[in-house]
Amino acid sequence: MTEPWRDPLLPVSVRVADLLDRMTLEEKAGQLTAFWAQPSAPGAPVAPMEDDSGESAPDLDHLAVHGLGQLTRVYGTAPVTAKAGMERLASLQRQVMASGRFGIPAVAHEECLTGFMTWGATVFPAPPAWGASFDPGLVRRMAAAIGAGMRRAGVHQGLAPVLDVVRDYRWGRTEECIGEDPYLVGAIGTAYVQGLEGAGIVATLKHFAGYSASRAGRNMAPVSVGPREFADVLVEPFVRALREGRAGSVMNSYTDVDGVPAAADERLLTELLRGELGFGGVVVADYYAVSFLETRHGVTGSRGAAGALALTAGIDVELPTARCYGGPLTELVRAGGVPEELVDRAAERVLLQKAELGLLDPGWEPADPEAVDLDPPENRALARLMAERSTVLLANDGILPLRPCRVAVHGPYADEPRAFLGCYSFPNHVAPPGEPGLEIPTLAEALGTAGFTVTSDDPDVNVLLLGDRAGLFGRGTSGEGCDAETLDLPGDQAALASAVLDSGVPTVLVVVSGRPYALGTAAGRASAVLQAFFPGEEGATALARIISGAAEPTGRLPVSLPRRAGGQPGTYLHAALGGPTDWSSVDPTPLFPFGHGLSWTRFAFSELSVDPEAPTDGAVTVSATVRNVGGVAGTEVVQLYLSDPVASVVRPRRWLAGFARVGLPAGAAARVSFSVHADRTSFTGLDLRRRVEPGEIGVAVGRSSGDLPLQGSFTLRGPVRHPAADRVLSVPADVVPVP
Amino acid sequence: MTEPWRDPLLPVSVRVADLLDRMTLEEKAGQLTAFWAQPSAPGAPVAPMEDDSGESAPDLDHLAVHGLGQLTRVYGTAPVTAKAGMERLASLQRQVMASGRFGIPAVAHEECLTGFMTWGATVFPAPPAWGASFDPGLVRRMAAAIGAGMRRAGVHQGLAPVLDVVRDYRWGRTEECIGEDPYLVGAIGTAYVQGLEGAGIVATLKHFAGYSASRAGRNMAPVSVGPREFADVLVEPFVRALREGRAGSVMNSYTDVDGVPAAADERLLTELLRGELGFGGVVVADYYAVSFLETRHGVTGSRGAAGALALTAGIDVELPTARCYGGPLTELVRAGGVPEELVDRAAERVLLQKAELGLLDPGWEPADPEAVDLDPPENRALARLMAERSTVLLANDGILPLRPCRVAVHGPYADEPRAFLGCYSFPNHVAPPGEPGLEIPTLAEALGTAGFTVTSDDPDVNVLLLGDRAGLFGRGTSGEGCDAETLDLPGDQAALASAVLDSGVPTVLVVVSGRPYALGTAAGRASAVLQAFFPGEEGATALARIISGAAEPTGRLPVSLPRRAGGQPGTYLHAALGGPTDWSSVDPTPLFPFGHGLSWTRFAFSELSVDPEAPTDGAVTVSATVRNVGGVAGTEVVQLYLSDPVASVVRPRRWLAGFARVGLPAGAAARVSFSVHADRTSFTGLDLRRRVEPGEIGVAVGRSSGDLPLQGSFTLRGPVRHPAADRVLSVPADVVPVP
Repeated sequence: MTEPWRDPLLPVSVRVADLLDRMTLEEKAGQLTAFWAQPSAPGAPVAPMEDDSGESAPDLDHLAVHGLGQLTRVYGTAPVTAKAGMERLASLQRQVMASGRFGIPAVAHEECLTGFMTWGATVFPAPPAWGASFDPGLVRRMAAAIGAGMRRAGVHQGLAPVLDVVRDYRWGRTEECIGEDPYLVGAIGTAYVQGLEGAGIVATLKHFAGYSASRAGRNMAPVSVGPREFADVLVEPFVRALREGRAGSVMNSYTDVDGVPAAADERLLTELLRGELGFGGVVVADYYAVSFLETRHGVTGSRGAAGALALTAGIDVELPTARCYGGPLTELVRAGGVPEELVDRAAERVLLQKAELGLLDPGWEPADPEAVDLDPPENRALARLMAERSTVLLANDGILPLRPCRVAVHGPYADEPRAFLGCYSFPNHVAPPGEPGLEIPTLAEALGTAGFTVTSDDPDVNVLLLGDRAGLFGRGTSGEGCDAETLDLPGDQAALASAVLDSGVPTVLVVVSGRPYALGTAAGRASAVLQAFFPGEEGATALARIISGAAEPTGRLPVSLPRRAGGQPGTYLHAALGGPTDWSSVDPTPLFPFGHGLSWTRFAFSELSVDPEAPTDGAVTVSATVRNVGGVAGTEVVQLYLSDPVASVVRPRRWLAGFARVGLPAGAAARVSFSVHADRTSFTGLDLRRRVEPGEIGVAVGRSSGDLPLQGSFTLRGPVRHPAADRVLSVPADVVPVP
Repeated sequence: MTEPWRDPLLPVSVRVADLLDRMTLEEKAGQLTAFWAQPSAPGAPVAPMEDDSGESAPDLDHLAVHGLGQLTRVYGTAPVTAKAGMERLASLQRQVMASGRFGIPAVAHEECLTGFMTWGATVFPAPPAWGASFDPGLVRRMAAAIGAGMRRAGVHQGLAPVLDVVRDYRWGRTEECIGEDPYLVGAIGTAYVQGLEGAGIVATLKHFAGYSASRAGRNMAPVSVGPREFADVLVEPFVRALREGRAGSVMNSYTDVDGVPAAADERLLTELLRGELGFGGVVVADYYAVSFLETRHGVTGSRGAAGALALTAGIDVELPTARCYGGPLTELVRAGGVPEELVDRAAERVLLQKAELGLLDPGWEPADPEAVDLDPPENRALARLMAERSTVLLANDGILPLRPCRVAVHGPYADEPRAFLGCYSFPNHVAPPGEPGLEIPTLAEALGTAGFTVTSDDPDVNVLLLGDRAGLFGRGTSGEGCDAETLDLPGDQAALASAVLDSGVPTVLVVVSGRPYALGTAAGRASAVLQAFFPGEEGATALARIISGAAEPTGRLPVSLPRRAGGQPGTYLHAALGGPTDWSSVDPTPLFPFGHGLSWTRFAFSELSVDPEAPTDGAVTVSATVRNVGGVAGTEVVQLYLSDPVASVVRPRRWLAGFARVGLPAGAAARVSFSVHADRTSFTGLDLRRRVEPGEIGVAVGRSSGDLPLQGSFTLRGPVRHPAADRVLSVPADVVPVP
């Protein structure tokens, strides 16, 4: 008779309960560990990676003798073809199944922020580009395409998306974030989760929570925020991605918040995440974060104690490899230092995930290795569309679109195709120089394809490509560990810009970066300025198409573009006293505000209508007409902002409450209606409970946070209300053509 | 028969209870208001200042018809002699006494941060200089001298000291702060309070609390800190100044902390300040802070409601003038919107203060106006001693002390004597150009007096004077409202430094500033570098004496001196991950660490002894020998730091636990013993209660936070302990000469 846990017809909870009953402590603990093999070069023997302390982790046979929870980045550490990766993964899975008494395979996870992070897979635009697209539908399609490739390769879980809300542009991982507004991050991030989960890949929300607010933007530095800012800004996108995206996994933040490391924070990972937000999936540790409780944060004195602390807090699986959750933890349990129930709790979550993935089903076998094209034409088309839709036209004196002419391309990365890729792309994260793993055009090549004559002298127009080169830990100017001290353009780019602009030749400035930079006088002196956020392998093509007019730049800034190199941290979500005042000599007004972006045409806003009032548990409808008053078709991103002139705590001066991409032929108009629930005015009150307060709410509609031609208000009536987890998180927009 | 409230023989509480019984609502509310006259030029008529909104405040006759709480800065707004100021104050007091039914005079308050802020009074060094002196005794004498002048002038309350702990050097008010370590701020600030209160002047602790952590160092911007950092860093110095200094007044911070403005924070101003910390004095509003609840923070919608919010929170007196606490508040009380008991509570505190000051005594009269020298020779000597003791010799290749020679003085303020004065000096805060009110030498003049030949060409040595010019609201490079975006030297000073250093003439760099600056390559190229923090009217003389060797530079950095212009906020009190790590490309290591400073001689540290253990409610003795191993007499500041390798929350890598100034002849030695109570290891735990944990504590003794030749440890044994308000706050040091 089939044991109940093997029976696919039984409920997963019954199967997992049965399995747990059969397991020893070591077998349950085994499900909480992971194994990371050395770079998976074809034919190389399997050997464990060194852990953070430089020690070699246990080898797989030793580690998996009681089973294994996860396999870490089988594809993601060295160039392998998809087929070779599948062979390697299948071999490891068979080894795992053969080692444990129950023959349970591991969950295979990979990075997938800008695409499946393996050799030869499509590199999509980086998250700020998703934010700039203001296009959840396209992000959902992109994530579905990413997930499809991973699924075919036998991967189960992807370590994306990053839902950290940008708070300090200096942070190197700004390029992994969607933007500086929690509503935008939540909307876009949820779409990504839906796409990935819909493809059968477990999405991992990271980093829960607070990472982006690290002191001075230094990676992993302590976070100084209070509980209100933490809840209303930093946690907010996770709420929506959990509720509407049904993400299956969450990863902790490395940082401590007010002295408490997330990996040791039971209130965060258990009380809030599971208790209040209802999360039922698996919490995985960010790489080495369990160890860090001992070695970096100093909140515990041994490996086992670090494991106990993380397990108690609510981290179910230690990644990337077993340092604390293996022997040290089980020894502590055996010695009575940790309740075995905590191991049971985590093992149950892992096994539920495995049951849902089919990994407990009888006859499960790794997929047969086969040649898989991880960069098919439909992916490239999607990558290009996303690159086009997310490119922001910051300024244009009319030079763009540019007619066919002679152009010269300047800039330190004029010949570097990888400058279009983010840090979490395989070529920038892993591959050694010379092995990009992709055929990507340079901007010059793409401009040639787009019909321009590219020359090194005597051009009609200069194209000045400035910005970042992504890389890990100081090997780039953007990316994980590549933090900046100020927002000056990297290196000598400001001087280069001056020299190019001094030539008198009309110049199109193209900034391809992972963070917004203070462009200084260059922005005003250039004939046009385009901003792209690591637009991926099709980035150069997309930019060339935009420059030529073959495509429209429909991106809007998901962050502010600062006027000055200092003055961080900064956010458009500031209260009145956080903005320009007569009490400080420093004016933080950005050069281009959050939400800004031009198009090939012009739009006029009119006829704002706002329901005069709503109960504190109801909604108002805000409508406005947007008309294309230019001579060509184009796309506007209609943006709705709210404000709360009098509240019981200090509120941002305004915040994004809704948006709608509206494409219109020349002369055409549309009526955009937003259904704004009172919950979109909610905030954490003095008693630290979420509340909706009665009173006047300001409404503004327009083309950016700094350009809001339509202004109105409505009144919330009724008692103060305390919405819980079921509050309304989204603002549906309805777009109807009008004469 | 004398009414009881007039009877000086009765206890003040009895007198005040009697008086309150006799008062109407309006009379009690009148005690919560203040009046600020227009600039008090000799002979000018009394007219009210405009309030923050540009409206004219009520005139005194109208305002004081029911009595008045305070008179605002009668001396501090325009140049008047002490005698003219006394006449004006006496006249105003008589007007106040004649207006109200009870004839009660007002409390007269003035600014006094770097001295009684009036025309002709001694301008002492700014607070970072007090911190740099590491000399509480000298600070106490300075404050006593300041208070003596104020007392003679009929002033009752001084709006100092500032106990904000420096968190971001860009903040313009850094120059008003003592330093970046709460223990140092507490020790020095308490000494100031003791000096001022000992002279009969009510000291006002400000700004309670959190102001210095405003976002990006912009004045008044919101503060993002959690409750642990708030308690352990920002509130900490106030605890000691209240307990050991017995300060009579506290002023709120302008900022909101995590969305709650201090002026509206009942938990802060009542539960913490009075409930936990036992404060029994008067809380005054920072100027316009009550109004700001309506006009800037947006947490209330009218003047009366702003008044009610502030009164409820615990602000007793609105300063500088009555905008919310006058009619608007009493109307709200009459309408039932505010309990009258809250007015009673505040009025009782004000009247208790007045009773203690003798202002309720029968026959009280303003002092007879007389000529008073507010800058007597003994003050100047004290100012010079403080300037000398607080000047930090950062680097010296042996050029200093400088023998008589030809020197050229360079720098934008080479001819500006006011460059030695902080923002809260009368000449920089109030006086128009041309009316400094003091005879202050320039650095060139002082060097001439010190025996150098000052020339404009062909010198033997360049003296390069760089740094700040203090002023209000953008009228300077340091001071209130003069925030910086980065820590580059102001203006073109870096270029000037390069030019001077390029000359090849040996250069002594003298930085006179309100904040630490990134000196770039100049620090390494100069032959010597001196750092002074607005050293006051004797600053130039002190610097010249140090340069010539007539005085010793015994200052030690009360802040770190940054290596780079970006990277703020920053503090030496960072956890491991807040310092340099392999996970961030930004290395925040300072150019010169907190506590650094050279002298004319060298000191060796030896023979550390540490008691091996103590109970969690006990103390250990840490002893070390310091020997002058150079050829001349000199002074070392022996510094003791602690660390906590494993704690239940993330702790700073090390923190200052004690210090002792030790002057030694050449070759002599002393044994310095610190009595370190376990309370000095306490911190706010996960449950937000203060706790002392058992375990190992690291001990280090040396000459700066970055140069600690002696290292040891002790063990705390016993249960976790929760010290309350009675915890031990200071670390007494015993210095005994040894052979």
